Amino acid sequence: MKAAGIDVLLLAKPANMFYLTGDGRLCAYAMVSQDGKVALGVPTTDVEDVRRLARFDRIVGFEDEVGMIHSIAHSFEQFGIREGVVGLEYTFLTQSMLGMLTHPHGKPEKVRVADCTHILSELRMVKEAGELERIGAAAKVGEAGMKAAVEAVKPGLTESQIAAEAEYAMRQAGAEGFWRTYVSSGPRTNIAHGLPSHRRLIPGDLVMIDLHPIVNGYSADMCRTVCIGRPTAGQQAAFDLYLRAQQATIARVRAGVGMVELEETMHAPLKTAGHGEHIFGPPIHGVGIEFEEAPLPPGHAFFHGEKAPPPLPANVVLAVGNCGLYAGPWGVRVEDTVVVGSEGPLVLTNYPRSLGTQPAREGTRR
Amino acid sequence: MKAAGIDVLLLAKPANMFYLTGDGRLCAYAMVSQDGKVALGVPTTDVEDVRRLARFDRIVGFEDEVGMIHSIAHSFEQFGIREGVVGLEYTFLTQSMLGMLTHPHGKPEKVRVADCTHILSELRMVKEAGELERIGAAAKVGEAGMKAAVEAVKPGLTESQIAAEAEYAMRQAGAEGFWRTYVSSGPRTNIAHGLPSHRRLIPGDLVMIDLHPIVNGYSADMCRTVCIGRPTAGQQAAFDLYLRAQQATIARVRAGVGMVELEETMHAPLKTAGHGEHIFGPPIHGVGIEFEEAPLPPGHAFFHGEKAPPPLPANVVLAVGNCGLYAGPWGVRVEDTVVVGSEGPLVLTNYPRSLGTQPAREGTRR
Repeated sequence: MKAAGIDVLLLAKPANMFYLTGDGRLCAYAMVSQDGKVALGVPTTDVEDVRRLARFDRIVGFEDEVGMIHSIAHSFEQFGIREGVVGLEYTFLTQSMLGMLTHPHGKPEKVRVADCTHILSELRMVKEAGELERIGAAAKVGEAGMKAAVEAVKPGLTESQIAAEAEYAMRQAGAEGFWRTYVSSGPRTNIAHGLPSHRRLIPGDLVMIDLHPIVNGYSADMCRTVCIGRPTAGQQAAFDLYLRAQQATIARVRAGVGMVELEETMHAPLKTAGHGEHIFGPPIHGVGIEFEEAPLPPGHAFFHGEKAPPPLPANVVLAVGNCGLYAGPWGVRVEDTVVVGSEGPLVLTNYPRSLGTQPAREGTRR
Repeated sequence: MKAAGIDVLLLAKPANMFYLTGDGRLCAYAMVSQDGKVALGVPTTDVEDVRRLARFDRIVGFEDEVGMIHSIAHSFEQFGIREGVVGLEYTFLTQSMLGMLTHPHGKPEKVRVADCTHILSELRMVKEAGELERIGAAAKVGEAGMKAAVEAVKPGLTESQIAAEAEYAMRQAGAEGFWRTYVSSGPRTNIAHGLPSHRRLIPGDLVMIDLHPIVNGYSADMCRTVCIGRPTAGQQAAFDLYLRAQQATIARVRAGVGMVELEETMHAPLKTAGHGEHIFGPPIHGVGIEFEEAPLPPGHAFFHGEKAPPPLPANVVLAVGNCGLYAGPWGVRVEDTVVVGSEGPLVLTNYPRSLGTQPAREGTRR
């Protein structure tokens, strides 16, 4: 904070509040001073729950938006801050939320605002042992979800029903939640964000399943693509090409590697094969409290309000294989969660990577 | 748009894009002119899929953020807009997204920006027949999810396992997705946003279940609270009080009623009973493409960047009973999706409203 010229943080993003204070909930804020004092503002109803979960220097309850703004004023007062710079999360706050957090009845007039996104991103990027353990647990839960989903893949079921199997299995295996589940099939595998639809699977379909379980506040990210029946030669070739690129990229994951080098390792074979226009989004991104977080490759980082990442230190966690290969009229994607080790990669998501052959007989609900 | 002095809309919120164009996806934008021309920008990979789903005057694909900014420049050019006002969604855009949509390589220098939130909210507030049908279908799916969840409530299961049952049943019943599921139990029913945790249910617990299924792009919102075993006299009294307030409010739902009147009808009996500090959030809000949307009561509307709502026309859809009663060390909430009819309310979510008595024997996974 000192280096960034920020005197106090005013956080509202649950992921950041969870990281710094152990509690990240909706409709709340955390004010954090340079010397580590934390004031938490939550709905009045939640005060006892927060007290039970974590320790804070000050907890204030509010009943509505006006109450929240006044409580922000009191927190500034309590911290003795009348001027200087307050850091806000520019990559999270909407215009209306920004208006509330900087309302003239809350923020002292002489306090200026600045973006604090990079401060939190830098802190969160390198994971401690306890965080790695939780991400590992999420990866295991993801494997259970993927197994349930892939085994359910049969003609006649809808994409949403496949998602149901994955999500049910993840909660039973220990997830308290999950980020959005993607299940797409047939021509829908050719789009970048395949949220489940009512499309029914038919023989010959590719099915793309992308899961993001949350265990004790931490996530994993895994994608597999499978075929119902025998894949065509073109589908198999595209899958093999993509998997080779992904595995070559994973092989380079170790302390000191740059995001640009990883991005190029993933992209180069796809572009060489003429697929430069058939990929989308960062091929590699960070994984942690959020399933998609810093580090991002520099180009993406800039537009997402993040700083270009340094050579990766050990214990950064990455998802490798996010860009997909959308060759049309279908696509393939394989993605895994990988820890940056000092000597090499540690792959956390180990469900088999195979286009495989799912039985082409009619499915039934269980 | 004319009345608001806005020459062109530049939308990025999936719900708004879906409403106006029939397609709302992530990482995309829609530019809409006053005379109804629509240009859509999507990932290059998605162009064919978009073409299949809806008709547009212009579809452009982009491969990354720079491509998106350039495509925005081309769309402004195509629409012949070099000055005037572009409307942006201030209640949706983060600072970083706003930066991309108004990047000097995209937006012409002389084009000014203004908030267009209220334009879309006003359009979306009154539902057409096809929309009511979809919300009704979502309500039925919500009932199936609630039945599965309530029947699963047994000591020994976790909150997350109860959520699993609800979500699985909703997808099987026809949901393509759902907004976040809340399941809280015991002391956790006393918080405003009870995301499922690993807490195991025990005899005597209240369990609060809040579901938000999505069917063909439209949502419903329903909450029930049930007890494991026999509720205490205090729990039953709080539940009865809350249910009476909610039902009295629903009884007043008809064309011409004001949100303030509905809010007061819900709040008054709770406040009279000394629970003024035991409620949180708007007691009533709109339901549609989003499970929480305009109209909001005026106080909340202001801070959420929405306009104060007019007397409600027929065919607005409301969730009634959102504020909860968090009496500590437990809370109760009952919430239903209700259509504003010209003669009175039409309640869409009809799962029984009873604190009930769930069996207090050990549960097992199915």
